[in-house]
Amino acid sequence: MTVAGQMLETYPKDLGGVDRDKLRECIEACVECAQACTACADACLSEDMVAELTKCIRTNLDCADVCDATGRVLSRRTGYDATLTRAVLEACAAACKACGDECGQHASMHEHCRVCAEACRRCERACRELIAALG
Amino acid sequence: MTVAGQMLETYPKDLGGVDRDKLRECIEACVECAQACTACADACLSEDMVAELTKCIRTNLDCADVCDATGRVLSRRTGYDATLTRAVLEACAAACKACGDECGQHASMHEHCRVCAEACRRCERACRELIAALG
Amino acid sequence: MTVAGQMLETYPKDLGGVDRDKLRECIEACVECAQACTACADACLSEDMVAELTKCIRTNLDCADVCDATGRVLSRRTGYDATLTRAVLEACAAACKACGDECGQHASMHEHCRVCAEACRRCERACRELIAALG
Amino acid sequence: MTVAGQMLETYPKDLGGVDRDKLRECIEACVECAQACTACADACLSEDMVAELTKCIRTNLDCADVCDATGRVLSRRTGYDATLTRAVLEACAAACKACGDECGQHASMHEHCRVCAEACRRCERACRELIAALG
Repeated sequence: MTVAGQMLETYPKDLGGVDRDKLRECIEACVECAQACTACADACLSEDMVAELTKCIRTNLDCADVCDATGRVLSRRTGYDATLTRAVLEACAAACKACGDECGQHASMHEHCRVCAEACRRCERACRELIAALG
Repeated sequence: MTVAGQMLETYPKDLGGVDRDKLRECIEACVECAQACTACADACLSEDMVAELTKCIRTNLDCADVCDATGRVLSRRTGYDATLTRAVLEACAAACKACGDECGQHASMHEHCRVCAEACRRCERACRELIAALG
Repeated sequence: MTVAGQMLETYPKDLGGVDRDKLRECIEACVECAQACTACADACLSEDMVAELTKCIRTNLDCADVCDATGRVLSRRTGYDATLTRAVLEACAAACKACGDECGQHASMHEHCRVCAEACRRCERACRELIAALG
Repeated sequence: MTVAGQMLETYPKDLGGVDRDKLRECIEACVECAQACTACADACLSEDMVAELTKCIRTNLDCADVCDATGRVLSRRTGYDATLTRAVLEACAAACKACGDECGQHASMHEHCRVCAEACRRCERACRELIAALG
């Protein structure tokens, strides 16, 4: 089991009816996507055609920051607030959609964009599934 | 002028029709609120009645993370994405509302919660005004 | 291969003589430890004996922030700066040592502290091995 | 008084002998510098000569992340740990030195780099003065 999964297993109180698997998958996807976007922004910076990748870099940086914040909010279960959780998940899905689309446009030319676009799409899907599971 | 204001003044391209004053105020409010929430979570931790402040601490931590991410997204102007900006501002307003309400309940007893609640309300207002200005 | 590993594989320029496996392990350990510490701080908050865990919570929060920043710095390879990398790794090792020791004291009583202490020790070790590999 | 100053004033326990003015100045400098570096990275991205600014962008991103983490660690006073505080301040001073030097090289050509270099130097100085004050 991943450490994120172990942390959910060892949370001392009830998780409050949340779908534990979807929650764990979403935390893991946020953490993975944040790292991929940070690395993809940097890989774009080192491409000779960096001048054509500035929107991609910017979207990567936004997505990294929003995924980081979302992974942290989701990792907290004490004093759970459904309204805030939903708003943060919506912002994260929007960031991942924007970055997945942008990186997807460069995926055939840059392998780092292809890997990053996949991470963004997984994270967007995980956010939307968790939103749906929140009811 | 603040450094955030100077950074907006020296941005080399057009800011794209955004209301510069509202943008600057929102960036400054996010940065200020993130720090206040980090400090308020810690001040709550050192109160003798910490056991009654756990929801407040959690909400502070969430608000700090979301304000941080929002201040960063707003500080970027290259390849501006209105959909993402709006979603992030909505999440930030929700985080500030939750934290302002929670800290507000302890404001008469804890001065740090009073100061923090005011920072949250300023930031929530700045987010909503910027959303309105985005049109 | 993990996404972090794939991002290193697809970096378009030379990685500059760094030990790729140790770098990947350290990035992965930072990301994992940051999430574990965020979750452990929250789990401590929900313990009935939270008043005895305030130092643990604070150390968890510091460790999460420093590991996050370190994972980001290490994920960037463009314009590599050995002095900065080393200073950040030293700070991260110090944060992980402090948090591993603190959580370690509660490991027999709280499973989340046990899991988190192990993540901290792995990350401290990964930081020290990467420092050594930098030469 | 700034909000950061008010949060220090309202901390419920003793601040433990730290020089309050130097601490407040360092927190404020970290927060200001993190925002300036985020904005400078983005301003560099929108320069026509972005291909010559990739090292500057990378250093800006590192400095933003390290200043953010440092501002958070310094904003916490509960369970104070001098060893960790010192290591984080050393990393922050190194990040600000690297970014101040790098931005300083472009200061005559790019106003955003000039403003950012000054923020980095103020923050580096504030870190070093706080390290000295820690004894």
